[in-house]
Amino acid sequence: MALLGIDIGGTKLAAAVFTEEGNILSKEIISLGGREGAAAGSLITSTVSRLLRADVSSGNRVESIGISVPGIYRIKEGTVWAPNIPGWDNYPLLKEVTEVSGGVPVIVDSDRACYILGEMWKGNARGCTNAIFMAVGTGIGAGIVADGRILRGAHDIAGAIGWLALTRPFRDEYIGCGCFEHHASGEGIAKTAREYLENESEYAGELRNKPVEEITSYDIFVAYHNADPLAIRVIKQSIEYWGMAVANLISLFNPEKIILGGGVFGPAVSLIPDITKEAARWAQPISRGQVTIEASALGGDAGVYGAGYLAREKYQSRS
Amino acid sequence: MALLGIDIGGTKLAAAVFTEEGNILSKEIISLGGREGAAAGSLITSTVSRLLRADVSSGNRVESIGISVPGIYRIKEGTVWAPNIPGWDNYPLLKEVTEVSGGVPVIVDSDRACYILGEMWKGNARGCTNAIFMAVGTGIGAGIVADGRILRGAHDIAGAIGWLALTRPFRDEYIGCGCFEHHASGEGIAKTAREYLENESEYAGELRNKPVEEITSYDIFVAYHNADPLAIRVIKQSIEYWGMAVANLISLFNPEKIILGGGVFGPAVSLIPDITKEAARWAQPISRGQVTIEASALGGDAGVYGAGYLAREKYQSRS
Repeated sequence: MALLGIDIGGTKLAAAVFTEEGNILSKEIISLGGREGAAAGSLITSTVSRLLRADVSSGNRVESIGISVPGIYRIKEGTVWAPNIPGWDNYPLLKEVTEVSGGVPVIVDSDRACYILGEMWKGNARGCTNAIFMAVGTGIGAGIVADGRILRGAHDIAGAIGWLALTRPFRDEYIGCGCFEHHASGEGIAKTAREYLENESEYAGELRNKPVEEITSYDIFVAYHNADPLAIRVIKQSIEYWGMAVANLISLFNPEKIILGGGVFGPAVSLIPDITKEAARWAQPISRGQVTIEASALGGDAGVYGAGYLAREKYQSRS
Repeated sequence: MALLGIDIGGTKLAAAVFTEEGNILSKEIISLGGREGAAAGSLITSTVSRLLRADVSSGNRVESIGISVPGIYRIKEGTVWAPNIPGWDNYPLLKEVTEVSGGVPVIVDSDRACYILGEMWKGNARGCTNAIFMAVGTGIGAGIVADGRILRGAHDIAGAIGWLALTRPFRDEYIGCGCFEHHASGEGIAKTAREYLENESEYAGELRNKPVEEITSYDIFVAYHNADPLAIRVIKQSIEYWGMAVANLISLFNPEKIILGGGVFGPAVSLIPDITKEAARWAQPISRGQVTIEASALGGDAGVYGAGYLAREKYQSRS
């Protein structure tokens, strides 16, 4: 038997066939090619149909299908809101895939949920029943497993940690994205640096080599490793925010693991000891002694592993 | 049939016999009389024994017993850590009460958990499956029900929201109690006012009528309602912190209800509209439209109702 995991991103999808133990038998990456709405849905259903047929012929029959979606999954309705796929405001993905699956069960969840499930299955949160994946990329979100179950909330949008209030007073810049995300997402790091560059005419370091509006978080990490003083200030402030957010997750959830992932971790992985130290100042002291903070083991594959894990759970709950 | 709920506090216990529907048949308050360790345990077991006999004679046979404890309940061990009862560091309460219950099932949980369960049963969170009780008194803690279950964490200390990091930079005063509790617990409000009074010699309002070290949060609420300018500043700052913490709970948990209770709510109930407004600035915008923020309906009885609800759940899971 085999499991099919599909990780839908904003521009491409990854599809992997797993053994029940989580070994990958095959994996492919397929570009969405700018498809929107039902065209994106068709690409997914045709991929599922093809892989179901392929695995019958190879003898590894797919018995369950898990899908990770880049946004919110409304579990009661079976529909998806995905901001980066136009037309997916309320998309009936579960129904569409179920119609082509020939009776093979299908389960869908958000990418954030899949990241932490992937790490619990095959990454750095193995054996945990309380674990959190903090994904820091363009935006910030968290997949939270509490007492063995994905935290959903009343309307499936629990874990919106980009909105954490971490510093006073309120600023209008927080309106569109939240305080934590404004200061400490990939985009937030770049914004902070741009602000400093505009206000500090005496600075003449390497971040002046580019037009200020083209500065990215990547440039700032490079400058940081070159000991650029402005980059150091920006990154130190980010460490403070990441540490405070991690501390708040520790105090609220008393988890065993917090996994740091997303595009920024990446280059920020070397900062995890500093983030851990900052978190330790703020967090509930007993809980902080019971948690470890680690980088994602699976990186860009966390979502597809999580989708495979969903498929496995669905399969096991049927038998 | 009847249910017995016992709410153990730091100085007294409340014991109530409920119908299955949650109507109180009898209720009594018993002072702990300074009892510590096993003596406090004996008071509880003797109370249980007496009420079990009493209810047999009245025809309302107690079929299940729930107990709320003032601290942490370690569910795997059945033991209690209660900082205000000396000798209760690891107290085997479940075993002791089970030994005198004559086969009637016993269930124990923390007061924070019981507060929100009480509100879900008979208070302002009826019908909810995602609801949070934020208890602000001498300290600050939260009882959190997520997706229908009490949030426990890896070692039963989830919900330690007194430790939320809400303002930068870190200050040494946060070490013993956490940032949020330092600024916005009952004791935190008094501390803030005392700090202001010591630093502002020009202030000559009503808070000067007492030695500064005797000022309590109660005095500050009285002065606030008399439009005292220093009290207004202290309370406005507290509203900001309470609002930020409520916002963080909204963004993380996507709950249907947040209930504000504890000794401070009380006098701060009239501030809930202002706290709601402050929370709305910070919180994830979809989630903030899906939550309502209300005062506790049960006040000092929330714990004993929650204990009764625990008893009911235990009874129903057996049948």
